[in-house]
Amino acid sequence: MRFDQRHLLGIEPLRPDEITTLLDLADQYVTLSRRREKHSNVLSGLTQINMFFENSTRTQSSFELAGKRLGADVMNMAMQASSIKKGETLIDTALTLNAMHPDLLVVRHPHSGAVDLLAQKVNCAVLNAGDGRHEHPTQALLDALTIRRAKGRLHRLNIAICGDIAHSRVARSNILLLHKMENRIRLVGPATLMPPGMSEFGVEVYDDMREGLRDADVVMMLRLQKERMDGGFIPSEREYYHRWGLDAEKLSYAAPDAIVMHPGPMNRGVEIDGTIADDINRSVIQEQVEMGVAVRMAAMDLLARNLRARPTELSA
Amino acid sequence: MRFDQRHLLGIEPLRPDEITTLLDLADQYVTLSRRREKHSNVLSGLTQINMFFENSTRTQSSFELAGKRLGADVMNMAMQASSIKKGETLIDTALTLNAMHPDLLVVRHPHSGAVDLLAQKVNCAVLNAGDGRHEHPTQALLDALTIRRAKGRLHRLNIAICGDIAHSRVARSNILLLHKMENRIRLVGPATLMPPGMSEFGVEVYDDMREGLRDADVVMMLRLQKERMDGGFIPSEREYYHRWGLDAEKLSYAAPDAIVMHPGPMNRGVEIDGTIADDINRSVIQEQVEMGVAVRMAAMDLLARNLRARPTELSA
Amino acid sequence: MRFDQRHLLGIEPLRPDEITTLLDLADQYVTLSRRREKHSNVLSGLTQINMFFENSTRTQSSFELAGKRLGADVMNMAMQASSIKKGETLIDTALTLNAMHPDLLVVRHPHSGAVDLLAQKVNCAVLNAGDGRHEHPTQALLDALTIRRAKGRLHRLNIAICGDIAHSRVARSNILLLHKMENRIRLVGPATLMPPGMSEFGVEVYDDMREGLRDADVVMMLRLQKERMDGGFIPSEREYYHRWGLDAEKLSYAAPDAIVMHPGPMNRGVEIDGTIADDINRSVIQEQVEMGVAVRMAAMDLLARNLRARPTELSA
Repeated sequence: MRFDQRHLLGIEPLRPDEITTLLDLADQYVTLSRRREKHSNVLSGLTQINMFFENSTRTQSSFELAGKRLGADVMNMAMQASSIKKGETLIDTALTLNAMHPDLLVVRHPHSGAVDLLAQKVNCAVLNAGDGRHEHPTQALLDALTIRRAKGRLHRLNIAICGDIAHSRVARSNILLLHKMENRIRLVGPATLMPPGMSEFGVEVYDDMREGLRDADVVMMLRLQKERMDGGFIPSEREYYHRWGLDAEKLSYAAPDAIVMHPGPMNRGVEIDGTIADDINRSVIQEQVEMGVAVRMAAMDLLARNLRARPTELSA
Repeated sequence: MRFDQRHLLGIEPLRPDEITTLLDLADQYVTLSRRREKHSNVLSGLTQINMFFENSTRTQSSFELAGKRLGADVMNMAMQASSIKKGETLIDTALTLNAMHPDLLVVRHPHSGAVDLLAQKVNCAVLNAGDGRHEHPTQALLDALTIRRAKGRLHRLNIAICGDIAHSRVARSNILLLHKMENRIRLVGPATLMPPGMSEFGVEVYDDMREGLRDADVVMMLRLQKERMDGGFIPSEREYYHRWGLDAEKLSYAAPDAIVMHPGPMNRGVEIDGTIADDINRSVIQEQVEMGVAVRMAAMDLLARNLRARPTELSA
Repeated sequence: MRFDQRHLLGIEPLRPDEITTLLDLADQYVTLSRRREKHSNVLSGLTQINMFFENSTRTQSSFELAGKRLGADVMNMAMQASSIKKGETLIDTALTLNAMHPDLLVVRHPHSGAVDLLAQKVNCAVLNAGDGRHEHPTQALLDALTIRRAKGRLHRLNIAICGDIAHSRVARSNILLLHKMENRIRLVGPATLMPPGMSEFGVEVYDDMREGLRDADVVMMLRLQKERMDGGFIPSEREYYHRWGLDAEKLSYAAPDAIVMHPGPMNRGVEIDGTIADDINRSVIQEQVEMGVAVRMAAMDLLARNLRARPTELSA
């Protein structure tokens, strides 16, 4: 079992065997949680700081619960109300935090690359909880765990990622991970919401949902992120739903045992029909949330092991 | 000692012996807290999530302290900044939370019935921290404990509930509890602030404070909740105080040893005179706050016992 | 080792030997933290409440981490969203809190004297985290510890405090502490930003930075607090930097081994040049933050010892 990372900044730096190590450990945390043995002392004595420069109740809660259940001292910093407003730079904020001796720093930031920059300035392990349009590695890992548990494997699957791909760090991290694990990836959505430069991952691109979903084992819907769209083509919700919203008719083109995923929060009736979202035979959306906590426990556990193996400042 | 509830959604479902069980346990927590033995591990390993869709620093703090002192992993979710704003439904929020395996979910919501609805969708124990004009059971329980400690009993007392009763879930839960425990209840206040359908509880209704307070053992003042009044009669604060504000003269009509209560936060000089509020021989307002933490510890302790007695998902 | 305080309301009430006791203990916490032995159970079973009526992510985080690392049950109260908004008085808020049996109450308030007032109404130990223009004792203590570690002593040093002194409780607490420890203090800055009545501390006042910094062992810069200036002279940032901003040329007048301090958050290019702030041979700004957590751990540890030595309510 190898996991050689100091930080979890993205899927890009991870080797396939490191991904497997992390998912295996997360699987153990799922089992313990379902047995109501949620709490341990794996991170006891360590300090976890959650620093969210963008609001995300769901992701922050998941990291907070993960840390508390592992016995860490967890602190949330409300960065909207912070020194950043008083004109402090991101680097100064990072150095200030670092001086408080955190061990695990969970960061969400609206700018791509901001989390990497911050990681270079601190001594602790940094976990990227989403940076701009760049990466959201724990989301990709929780999606991978959900797929692996539902399908029994995480390779040679036909996976359709559908919707607003251009604005989605979720899509980007998922493409990186699923490509590393040797799956067949299709991107489905309007051309205006399709990012450039996807050819290196051997993905197929579809404008038509029915074609894109044909025989898919996994249908991964994305949230229509109007808040990230700066000009350009903005479809009406009604038109979007008609052409790219997942309903029973479009889903019938996928494999009979295809699973349906969504990272939440859902716009019911926009990118997905509520009936599909609630169909416990197809939808694994709740399981994704459950896997989220487990994957974050596993990531922090592995990073803390590596951290503890490094010399302290005093002994250095 | 019996407490057969899975949730604490209101006073309505509780039997009198269950109320007594809860108050007895709360009394023990009061004693421990005063001895500076506040912390235990009764909820150790369990996860408590506080989900407040309405701000309430006081109630949320009381629940948070109760959970932390019992050793739970406690998480507050700022629902104002949450996915609800991104268009997520209450049910989806509930299902998302449920997937994170909480054990105790404390919910405040502006809509009557929202907490009951949520409780139907989750596997954990739900505590209602106030829903619309419906119920606020822990407030009624802390009031009951305060009365029982001051008066030596919780039955056959003359209890006057005064003020803005129509908009008050506090009044509603208190009426339900005090009626179950066989007290004589009078509602005192302007007719426009009096709810319909109170006759089933055998309450007496008074427009005049002096008549209403005559020989009362307990004078329970309510907060004038202008923020909940949608149109209709809104009295001026000055006029309100003149007719229904509690001052020494009006209080002289009550029993000589009557206690004065207020759920806080107080509008001094509106519904209550500051001198009365501060009179340590009459006012038990600070004790109500103290009882609040103890009652919430007792409620979560009892619900957690029942929760642990149920099979886990894996063994099911 | 003596520390006879019930509260930490300011530097003013402290004896020099109490300051030394606190700094000695803080030094031990620094050593433990650097060895990654951050967590202990010194405050186990105690409740710490942070009540910030003014936002301060940095100070609140430092207190929060200090308490969590000592094993306290820590609760933050968002006072902006609290009952204060519903018209509750500060005294009522204090009494309400007190009824919840906190042991340590950390308070920041925009009004000078508000924290002292609050301390008179509660049974627990109160720590002033900054009140108006009055005091900010833990900042002065962390500055003192930083100086003592860098200079090997905390007496007979030439210390220049520079900038917006009139609006700064940081300056005020520092002057009180450094005077008690028998240092030579100079205040440097525009006459309009200089407080009256400084003569009792034997301070020298300079308008000119080069004169004021001559042979200084410690150069303590302050944040230009435009938000606190109510009318009067407001210099342009550019003019301010030109005359009173710390750059290499002005710093060359200080002693060759002078250290540079700033309480943060910094306005780079306003009161301090970024190059100076980042110069690890001169700047101890990051160390100040580190000392902040240690000093707060020491303060809460000492106050908790005194608290535990007092009889409880029940035994009283």
